This record gives sequence, structure tokens and C-alpha cells, in this order.
Amino acid sequence: MENLTEKTITKEQIYNGKIIDLYVEEVELPNKKIGKREIVKHPGAVAILAVTDEGKILMVEQFRKPLEKTIIEIPAGKLEKGEDPLECAKRELLEETGYSCEKMEPIGSFYTSPGFADELIHLFFTDSLIKKGAQMTDEDEFLNAMEISVDEARQMVKDERIHDAKTAYGVMYMELARAAGR
Amino acid sequence: MENLTEKTITKEQIYNGKIIDLYVEEVELPNKKIGKREIVKHPGAVAILAVTDEGKILMVEQFRKPLEKTIIEIPAGKLEKGEDPLECAKRELLEETGYSCEKMEPIGSFYTSPGFADELIHLFFTDSLIKKGAQMTDEDEFLNAMEISVDEARQMVKDERIHDAKTAYGVMYMELARAAGR
Repeated sequence: MENLTEKTITKEQIYNGKIIDLYVEEVELPNKKIGKREIVKHPGAVAILAVTDEGKILMVEQFRKPLEKTIIEIPAGKLEKGEDPLECAKRELLEETGYSCEKMEPIGSFYTSPGFADELIHLFFTDSLIKKGAQMTDEDEFLNAMEISVDEARQMVKDERIHDAKTAYGVMYMELARAAGR
Repeated sequence: MENLTEKTITKEQIYNGKIIDLYVEEVELPNKKIGKREIVKHPGAVAILAVTDEGKILMVEQFRKPLEKTIIEIPAGKLEKGEDPLECAKRELLEETGYSCEKMEPIGSFYTSPGFADELIHLFFTDSLIKKGAQMTDEDEFLNAMEISVDEARQMVKDERIHDAKTAYGVMYMELARAAGR
């Protein structure tokens, strides 16, 4: 196996933001030539696959400025500094849907865009929901909560009405669980 | 349903890069207050779920500078300006693995990080591979090609040796296809 490591030669911070930072690095490539890497630093995020007693998936409709449109996603949010992902997931679920839960379990974590960003998203599953009340979103966050069956969600992935990686993953997770008789 | 749209008030370009651009926008929120959005523009990408005659998934091991480590992913790459995603997928598959294919079909497209980036990744599937020769990677791209069975890949997702969203999605796609007897 070839050694694939890229050693940093210089590192310049381009932007220090509220959610992301941007760096540009000059790196020494495995063939000793010099390359350039553009790197977005992100604090990480959580997403929650939450299923009601009727077998419906909780989702939220939210305007995503980078896309200039509204999309439908499972509840999610970014980690606060030093925050435990499980605590963050419970907080986001309550804030975005008004549900808490008896039990929540991790079902994997994934880098979303390893070519240019270090964002790691932690996925959680719960099917022991308890309705607490209305949404309590952040002051700059606006969304509509929805409950969608697995079959309807599968169709929405096909139609690209669900067009988001973590949500499509969650839908397929439910389909696989069903196929496996879980 | 509430109107969730965020109207741009000001837009500043922070960075114009080789792969990504960064913008900061002031937006008018649905409650008429002013918010700030940090937005990464990306040309989009493709990834290829390619399965050999023996039922193994083609993967590549690659150093990802944002993560400061090597990870294992299905073959992928960014779109060139104006490039058709299918053509891009065939090109990337050949460059990264030395395989071409008789037939390749789209199996969905997904936004990877809609909170801060507009990256859309187009996924393709092929199981009609034809070995052409060695890798022909870009001059700043170094990777090891691998062939991994679905069972082994499932274990690698559990162990976080596969830790990348598109690849985990591809592995689950294969598991679901098997469960459905396809």
C-alpha cells in the first residue's frame, strides 16, 4: 500500500464564522509535489430518525439558504461546543418537533463531504416518543413539523421531494429494518 | 403552512477557490428579523456504487485532508463545469479504479450538507464492469483501489472503518437489494 498522507506546508485561515471556518492549506503530496486544499471546519451535527407509534417518521420542512429552497429532512442540528451528541440529539428533537423520548440509540456517524469539509453527523434512532408540546426553535430557525410513513417517504425520495443524504439514509434504514422483519 | 423563505439583504463573497466559494449573506427571516448565513458553493459531485461479478463493491482508500486521515469510500469526484453527471461518473470510475462499464444507472441524488453547502451528489450503480487497466488519477490525487464484499462492508460501517455518508448509503443499498431478493 502506498503512503497517501499529505503533509501541511502552509495553512491560512480565510474565514472565522459563526458555524464554519475556512482554511486554505498548501500540502506536500505523496509524489513530493505541492498541492492546494480548501478546508471547511464544522463543529459536527446530529440527526434523529424518530418513529411514531403509527410507524411514521418525524420530519421537518425548512428553508435552506444554500439551496434557495425549502426541503424536507429528519430533525437535525449542529453540536454546541463540547456538547455530547446524544444530549444534542434529544435537545434538537424536542426543539424541532416538541417530542422527547424514553430511549434513543446511536445508529452510526458519517462524514458528509470529506473532500472539502470535516463535518461529522451522528445519527440516532428512537421509537419511544413522548409528546411534550409545541416546537421551541432557535430565534433564527423556522420550520414545519411533519409525520410521514415509510412508503410515502420512499416515494418522496424517488420524486426528489426528499433530497437530503441523511434523510434518504434514514428512510432506507427503515426499509431495511422492515425487510429484515425488525 | 408558514412561509419559511429567507430573503437576501446583502451578499458578500469571502473566497473564490479552486473547488469551493464562500459567501456570507444577511437575510430577512420569516419574522422580519435579520439573520446571517454562511454558504459554501460547490460544483456538485458524483459517486459510483460499482459491483464486480463476484458481488464485491469497488472502493478506494484516499487521504482526506479535512479529516487528516485516510478513509475508504466508493469512487467519487466533483463535476467539471457543465459536465453531465453520468459522463462524470464513468470518467471517475475509470480514473480511480481502471474499470469501465457496459451500463450505468442513476440511483438518486442528495444534498450532503444543506445547512451550509449546496453540494449535490449524484449516485450511480453499475454491475457490468469491464477491466480496462490501471488507475489514471489526477495529478494531485492518490488512492488505493479495493474490492470489498457486502458483509465485510457492513462490518466496516459498524467499526467506522467506512465512515462516509455516500459509502454507508451504498452499502445499505446493496443490503436492501439483497433483502428484497434483487
